Order: sequence, then C-alpha cells, then structure tokens
Amino acid sequence: MKIALIQSKVLGSTFENIAAAKVKVAEAKRSGAKLAVLPEMFSCPYQTDLFRPNAFREGSDKYKAIQDIAVENSIYLVAGTVPEISKDSKVYNTSYAFSPDGSLIAKHRKAHLFDIDVEGGISFKESETLSPGTNITVFETEYAKIGLCICYDIRFPELSKLMVDKGAEIIIVPAAFNMTTGPAHWELTFRARALDNQVYTIGCAPARDLSASYHSYGNSIVCSPWGEVVARLDEKEGILYADIDLDYIKKVRSELPLLKHRRDDLYALIEK
Amino acid sequence: MKIALIQSKVLGSTFENIAAAKVKVAEAKRSGAKLAVLPEMFSCPYQTDLFRPNAFREGSDKYKAIQDIAVENSIYLVAGTVPEISKDSKVYNTSYAFSPDGSLIAKHRKAHLFDIDVEGGISFKESETLSPGTNITVFETEYAKIGLCICYDIRFPELSKLMVDKGAEIIIVPAAFNMTTGPAHWELTFRARALDNQVYTIGCAPARDLSASYHSYGNSIVCSPWGEVVARLDEKEGILYADIDLDYIKKVRSELPLLKHRRDDLYALIEK
Repeated sequence: MKIALIQSKVLGSTFENIAAAKVKVAEAKRSGAKLAVLPEMFSCPYQTDLFRPNAFREGSDKYKAIQDIAVENSIYLVAGTVPEISKDSKVYNTSYAFSPDGSLIAKHRKAHLFDIDVEGGISFKESETLSPGTNITVFETEYAKIGLCICYDIRFPELSKLMVDKGAEIIIVPAAFNMTTGPAHWELTFRARALDNQVYTIGCAPARDLSASYHSYGNSIVCSPWGEVVARLDEKEGILYADIDLDYIKKVRSELPLLKHRRDDLYALIEK
Repeated sequence: MKIALIQSKVLGSTFENIAAAKVKVAEAKRSGAKLAVLPEMFSCPYQTDLFRPNAFREGSDKYKAIQDIAVENSIYLVAGTVPEISKDSKVYNTSYAFSPDGSLIAKHRKAHLFDIDVEGGISFKESETLSPGTNITVFETEYAKIGLCICYDIRFPELSKLMVDKGAEIIIVPAAFNMTTGPAHWELTFRARALDNQVYTIGCAPARDLSASYHSYGNSIVCSPWGEVVARLDEKEGILYADIDLDYIKKVRSELPLLKHRRDDLYALIEK
C-alpha cells in the first residue's frame, strides 16, 4: 500500500490551498499512491486569530471542494486539518478522511489542544479559539485499519494505545510541530509511538514558511513498527512516498509480542 | 542530586559480584554520589538455567551482604536485580532498594517477562524459570520520588505512566538489552519514557561480555524530562555519573504541560 504525504506551504486563502492540494494529490495518484495525507491546517495559516474567520461547515462549498479531491482522483484522502465551525458556533481543528468515492469515513477533532509556553522558544495557545474534540478515531479501508489524530494528540500515549486497541495498524497524524518542539521531539515521538504500539506512524506537516507567523518544522515522516524512520523529508515542499508493509507489522508483533505481553491484570487503559 | 550508574561485568559467583559491587559503590560514594544503581542480574549471569541455582532469599547472607553495601557507604542503593526465591519456591527477577541506613525502601519484581524470538536475532524466554511480579513500585527518598522497574518493564508505557501518577520524578531501570534490541530500541525507549512522562529515566546495564551467553548492549544511560540524553556510556565497564536537576522537571512540566493536558474525561489508566 503506497501512501503519499503532501508537505505543502500554506497559502493565504482556503480556496488557493484546496486548489494547490488538488494538484498535489493528482500527482500522488499518478505515482501510484492509494492514500494521500495533507498537513495540519493546510487550508489556513496556523494562527489562532485566523481559525474562526477561515472556519467552514460540513457540507459547505469548501468542504465539498475537499471531498472532490478524493473523488476526482479516486483515492483515499486524509484531508489534513481545517478549522471546522459547528452548528453551535464552536471552532474545532478537524481532520476529515474520505474514501475514493467521496464518502466521509472518519472525522477527528483535535482532542488535546496545544497550549505551550517555553522560555526562549515557542508560545501558542490553541484553547483561546478552539474547542477540543471528544473522540478516539479509527477507520477501516480495504488495505488496513487506520487511527487518526492531530499533532499534539500524538504526544499522549494513552490515545495511540486506545487506537491500537481498536485495531489501528497505521496511525496518521496531520501535524505542525515548530522550531522548538520539532528538532527536540518530532522524530522521537513518531518513532516511539510506532515502536510501542507496533504500528506505522505517519506525520504530515506543512513545509516551513519563514514569512508565516508560525514556523512549521516540516520533516514529514513515516516510521515502522520496529521504530525505524522509513522515510522523511526536510523542511521544503515535497511529496513523501512510503510503502506500508502490513506483513511487517505481523512479523514484528510475533517476534516481540509487546501487545500480548501487556499486564492486563495489573493495569487497564479504558476509553470513557 | 548526583547519581552513579555502575556498569560492571557479571562474574561467575554471587559473592564475587557482590564484592565487586562493593568496591564500585565505594568509588561512587567518594565521587559524591548520593544514590548508586547496579545493573540487572548483577549477581549472576543472565541465563535462565542459572537463575534458580543462584537465587537467594530475603534475609539470607547474600541479601545482607548487598544491604551492607548501602550501610557501609551510607548511600541510597538500587541494587540492580538478583534472582529471588520466595517462600513458596518461586523465582523472581527482583530489584531491592536500600536507604543509607540499610532499610529496605523498595522491592520490585519484574512484572513483564522477556519472551522474545526475533528472526536472525535474539531468542530468550524468561518465563521458563521466572514468575512475574504484581506490583507498581515507587519509593521516596529525601531527594525525590523514584519509580523502579526492570528492563522489559520499561517497554510498557502504562507502567511508567502509573509510576508517574504515583509521584515518580525519576524512573530507575536496572536493565540488560541485547545486541538486537539494544541498538534498535534502548536509547529510543529511555528518551521516549522520559519525554512523555517528564521525568529523568535511568537505565543501568551490565558491561558487554562476549564470553557470556547473553551479550548485554551496555550503554547505561540517563535521559532528561525534555527527552535528551544527559549521559551515556559505551559497552565497556565504567561508572556513569549524572546530576539530577529536580527544578528542571518543574520547568519542563510548566512550559509543556503534558501531564496536565491529559484528557481524563476521554480515557483513564488505572491500576488494578
């Protein structure tokens, strides 16, 4: 199963970004990808004050334009994230996943909001404008079961483990680490979640844009169930391709049976 | 708080190993260490068929000889691990921790037994001779609260998280990764547990001995709550010193509040 991670720069308007994504997904399709992933907030700059003005509703024209990218290319599309406005006017950081026929097969609202203030480094407070999601998200495709979460969500081992308990063999993460947390934690976190859960992890980030207020680390990455980096970009625009080998997951889980060796009699992780 | 990780080669007899440990701990004490850690199975070669013949009881002469190392040096001692034989004749892979006055302040029996069979790599089956422990172990010292687990235990995120829920600021792990899992997973796992839990992690391994049947990876390591490697040895015998900065834990937990941002309304990790 060939997948494509589209590491694009974020442009000013939602429609520009959707148009750019369409071109890139078509390129990924021509290269044989069965599933394409877009980055976190691919549709609008990563600034809390821009989330609400750029937010749109499910079923709106913008939503349909994204859905069409999947249909036109007959490809699974994890459509990065967009600011979603709900019926009760709350704004969420939301990832939609579409099947090749355009059906909505998953929707994840970022559950852990990114509120951070590192001395001499990054300060950011998503909770100023965003509301948190309340779901653990796993969906099926004809190839594999896939867990879906967003950026800061991947830092919480409980969430990944619960996705794996629900059958996830791949965890896809539209994400935008920054120049403080990226160099320090990006690779480490994706490798660790992959190893601990014996899954492929996929982090798809925007390309770095030094003219933006938030500097994405980029470095879109694919890690294997043995904890190796399978493929990785640098900070520039590009498409990262990787082959997901589901047999390798079985091999690793059989040779080093971490999931089987959990002590369910000593501890339990439960979804509420 | 200065700590010392004693990466020693394992000799043939228990008394030889205890005598060698005594010399090294005295050296650590002279260097200002407040706490010394010995490696997993420092008292007997890491072979399943040798665990029962070398096992001893709490309160026995061998046990007292280890306790005396703490008393003679007036130092906190995490006495690696030894094969412990219980009253009902079960054998455990057990870590004892003594205070400077020789009081037993913690006892952890390895809870996750290492049964692994990697194609072209390591095969080992602890459960052939060992019984698993049933406790999550955290103890207090005048410096910090310390979680204690053994080798394969550190691979299970639930156990570390529960130690942290009980207040652990440092996780000490007598361990002996091998030449398959060591290069692939040792540093990754210790860095990831440190980062995810915002604690110091300490892995103390035996030095590599190519004449032994099990080849320890060595590489005793200390990682910081920001996920950095603070100090690390190679495969040879040595003492690794590191300063534990408890204020740094507070700083990291305040700037990147991972423990506070857990979604207790979405999931719960419970001790049974």
